[in-house]
Parts: sequence; structure tokens; C-alpha cells
Amino acid sequence: MRIVRTVAELRDATLAARTTGTGIALVPTMGALHEGHLSLVRAARAENALVVLSIFVNPTQFDDPSDLAAYPRTEQRDAELAGSAGADVIFAPSAAEMYPDGFATTVHVGGPLTATLEAAGRGTGHFDGVATIVSKLLLAALPDAAYFGMKDAQQVLVVRRMVRDLGIPCRIVACPTERDADGLALSSRNTRLTAEERERALAIPRVLRRVAEAIRIGAAGKAAAAAPSGDPAPTGAEPLADHGAFETARRRGLAELSAAGLDPEYLAIVDPEDLTPVDAPPAGGAVLVLAAARAGNTRLIDNVVVDTGTPVPR
Amino acid sequence: MRIVRTVAELRDATLAARTTGTGIALVPTMGALHEGHLSLVRAARAENALVVLSIFVNPTQFDDPSDLAAYPRTEQRDAELAGSAGADVIFAPSAAEMYPDGFATTVHVGGPLTATLEAAGRGTGHFDGVATIVSKLLLAALPDAAYFGMKDAQQVLVVRRMVRDLGIPCRIVACPTERDADGLALSSRNTRLTAEERERALAIPRVLRRVAEAIRIGAAGKAAAAAPSGDPAPTGAEPLADHGAFETARRRGLAELSAAGLDPEYLAIVDPEDLTPVDAPPAGGAVLVLAAARAGNTRLIDNVVVDTGTPVPR
Repeated sequence: MRIVRTVAELRDATLAARTTGTGIALVPTMGALHEGHLSLVRAARAENALVVLSIFVNPTQFDDPSDLAAYPRTEQRDAELAGSAGADVIFAPSAAEMYPDGFATTVHVGGPLTATLEAAGRGTGHFDGVATIVSKLLLAALPDAAYFGMKDAQQVLVVRRMVRDLGIPCRIVACPTERDADGLALSSRNTRLTAEERERALAIPRVLRRVAEAIRIGAAGKAAAAAPSGDPAPTGAEPLADHGAFETARRRGLAELSAAGLDPEYLAIVDPEDLTPVDAPPAGGAVLVLAAARAGNTRLIDNVVVDTGTPVPR
Repeated sequence: MRIVRTVAELRDATLAARTTGTGIALVPTMGALHEGHLSLVRAARAENALVVLSIFVNPTQFDDPSDLAAYPRTEQRDAELAGSAGADVIFAPSAAEMYPDGFATTVHVGGPLTATLEAAGRGTGHFDGVATIVSKLLLAALPDAAYFGMKDAQQVLVVRRMVRDLGIPCRIVACPTERDADGLALSSRNTRLTAEERERALAIPRVLRRVAEAIRIGAAGKAAAAAPSGDPAPTGAEPLADHGAFETARRRGLAELSAAGLDPEYLAIVDPEDLTPVDAPPAGGAVLVLAAARAGNTRLIDNVVVDTGTPVPR
């Protein structure tokens, strides 16, 4: 395994694989690797001849300098873990390599994807920082595919939009969120939690599961009501008022997060394509349920995709 | 010569040259080709195995809908001219191919390059439109080099900055402005000029030459004054007050443009690297003199680079 620091070295390290066209994968990370990152490396390894893992704690996507300063940096350990999981090249550039003097370019994704949720919580510049650094990493590594974790679901959507819009010749692969045995989504920030904060944080996946279940039941009810014919559901068989049910589940969830001692920022039930709020299960479609909450000083996010296309039988 | 309409077709048309690594050139244009564009094609032809010329009248870089509507569109003729000059592939996509439904991404170059001159005259979105479409064209064609005309000097600087900042693997080649025999810089907009407007428009290159001459004389005087030693110039030999001379030349030039019946927008003497105004000839450096003015309803721009490093002897 090779560690490179400059774009020129990275291009050199990927040249042979590019020439033979055997498949180059990029796994962009901010280091502090955990099993979630390693699952991305393994997915990349299974599908490509060369796997590049980048480690760059991107300053432009932090709105809070103390969050940036506190972000864990463990490069030596990261490189060993990534190598064990199958990475061939570690690209660990300096900030000056990525943002040299005079740097003046921003890649901005507009529209609904960046007008909500994490954009509100982390500052409007967050996704500009993400889109800009990801475009730079993709253009540096020129991979055939790049692997991202679904834990950062909104980030995946923003990156997909940016890659499609600019026409960067690369597939974006979204891999499932990895969780600890207790259900907490893996995150580099988890190391900052005290044992007590971690206990409280478990309310996040618990609430997401409950909201998902409420949505599944609502969707199943709707399907059952609509099943006999295309006619309106018979009086009395109306299983639930969808609008109220989604909003009720969402409010209950927020209350449960607060009751668990967390400081919830959002709990949202949205269209997984464009993040617009939905108040009824789409016919055969999926919904995305996302949450952000603070446990002490640590901000945590998580989400689940609820496929309402295969309703749960009642 | 082949005309392609989609990015997929363009990738297919450039695949062989990419695989053999013999050099791919892109000449981005908005069509209405003239000898200026063809000089770019010839420069590209001389240095590359495959020359792609793109024709796309980019709606996002026009702030004025009537300017967009009036922009000449002559694709058949353009394709023939480009082919004669040595283009192998014409990429002429639809607006829907470049900006499909849901398109939401903007490439923005900030800083001094986009805070002045054309940005003021054409709306703040102009260079966002330019940077976004050029990044898309570069990522579609994936050329080794792209050729731009120095007539749009500020555009060249913005594109260079964007390409360097994002790390798009492509050289940006700037070619000299082509002029008609009477000195007018070639532009697709010249066809809109009446004979009388065209006569007036000749004041633009004339004024640029005069300002350039004043700068050369100032630089030569400065060099002559400084030549004998590093001591201050002797009293009485002070050839001109640099500060006043640049500003005087600039104001006289503006007055001459107005006197010629043009509506001048700017006449600027700037650092050719970052477009900041200069009021003295840099030691051994170059300055860029740019002008924008309207002749009737037609907005024209032009510029000259003045190399003050080889002072004119007095």
C-alpha cells in the first residue's frame, strides 16, 4: 500500500490501472476510519482493480472551527486499517495541496437538496464545501466509481446531483449504513461521546425505527383499504388519515428524542429523491426518515429508508 | 467530419484517440464562426490528433434575453468552416442535453477575476454561466488541451482559474486575437453592426493602441530614468508621473471613444494576472488594457497586452 500526498503522485499511482481500464475506485473519507468506511473499501475492492482511499479533513465544509479542530486525526492507524480492508493507495493531501494560494472556485448545488436538513443545521456553506472537495477528489483520482455511505444520505444526493450535472465520468455507489450491535450508526464522532451520552444517543436509531414502522403500517393500511378496487375506501375502513399519521409519528419521535436527553435538530420524513417533505406514503415508493440531534456537544445524524412498495400485511 | 449531439456520442467519438493518448483538443464556441475561431482550430490541429469543436449558445451566460435571441446561429455553415480548418468532430448539443430537468449545479469563480469589467457589464451570473458550461464541456470531451481566444481575456483568466482550482486535467491555451484589416477584433457580434456603426467601432482598437503606446513610453521613460544607477532619477529627468500618466491616458481614451459616437462601458489598465487596476508600469511585467463599448445596440469588447519588459527606446 502506497501513501501519496499530491495530485500528481495520485495520477501517477493510478496511471497503470487507467491505461488497462480495469476499474479504479475512490473512497473519499475524512479519516478516523471505522467499520463503516471499511465496508466501503470492501465494496470497492470487490468491484475494481485499484482502490484509492482519500483522507482529507476538509476545512471548507465545517462551519464551526471547534468542530474542525476536534475532528479526530489518526492517519497512521487509518492507513493500516484501509490497507487491511483492501485499499491500494491512500491519498492524504495537505490543505495547501487542495486549496493553494489564490484558490477561488466553488461548486454549488442549488435547489431543494441543499435548502434543508443538514444545510440548515451546518450552515449554508457546508454542501458547497462538500461539492467542491468531492469534485476535486474525483478529478484528482479520476475513478470509475466512488463509494459513499448512506449514513450521510443528503450528502449522497448532493454528490449524485453534482456528478450528473457536471458530467463527471464516475458512478456514485451508496452503501448501507453500518451500525454497532446496539444500533448506533457508526460515525467518527462517536468516539467523542461519553458512555452516558452514548446511551442517550441510542434514542436516535430507536426513534427512526419507530417512525419507519408507523409509516409501514400506514402504507399497509392504505394498500389494504385500496386493495378491493379503485373505488374510494368504504366508510369505516379508512385505516388512518395519512397526513395526520406522518406528522403525528414525526412529533412523537421528536418528543422521544428530547425525553431521552438529546437536543434534536430535525426529524424529517421526505421524498428520497429530492428531500421534499411527504405527508403520505407514496404509491409503491420509498420515503426517507432522517434525524439530527446533539448528545452533549456532539452532533449526530442517522436515517432509514422505508420502502412502502411492499406493504406490511396487517 | 462527424456531428454529435450527446455527451455519450462525444465520448464514443473520442474514445480511440483517448485510448491511444495521441492528444485531444477542444475548441469551445457559441457558433457563428469567424476567422478567430478558425485560428483556434488550426492551432489545435497543429498540436493534437483529434480536434473537437463545440457549438453551444449557452443561455446561462446571457443576462439579456434579447442578446441571447439575437445571437447568430449558423450551424451548417459553422460545421463546414470548422471542417475545412481541421476539426474532426462537431459537438452541438441541445440545451436539454446540457441542462436536463433538475439541473442545479453552478461552478462559481470568486475573487477579483469576477468582480470587475465584464462581470459588471454583463451581470454577476455571466461568469458563473461561463465557468459552469466550460467545466461541463471539458468533462464531456475530456481533452488534453482547450483553445480560447484572447479577445475574451477575462474569460481566459476565469477558465484558467477554474481549471486549476478544480484540477480538471486539461491545458488551457490562449491564442491571439484575430483582427480584420481595419483593426476591428473579430467577433460574432460584428455582423450586427451597420456600416456606420462599424466605422465608429474602429475607435476601440485605435484607443487601445494609443493607450498601449502611452504605457510603453511611460515604461521606457521610467527605464531610461532608472538606467544610469539605482539612485533616484535626477531632478528634471523625471520623464512622467506614472500615476497621472496611466490615468490620463485612460481618461483620454474614454473621451475618444465617446467622441467617436460609441457608448463606452469601461477602459481599464490592469494586472494581466488578477485584473486589479495598475497605475504604474510594473518592472519588466506586462499590463492588460481592456475596453468595452456599445456601437448602437451592439456591445463590443477588445484588449491588448502591453509588455513593458522591453521598453521602447526614446
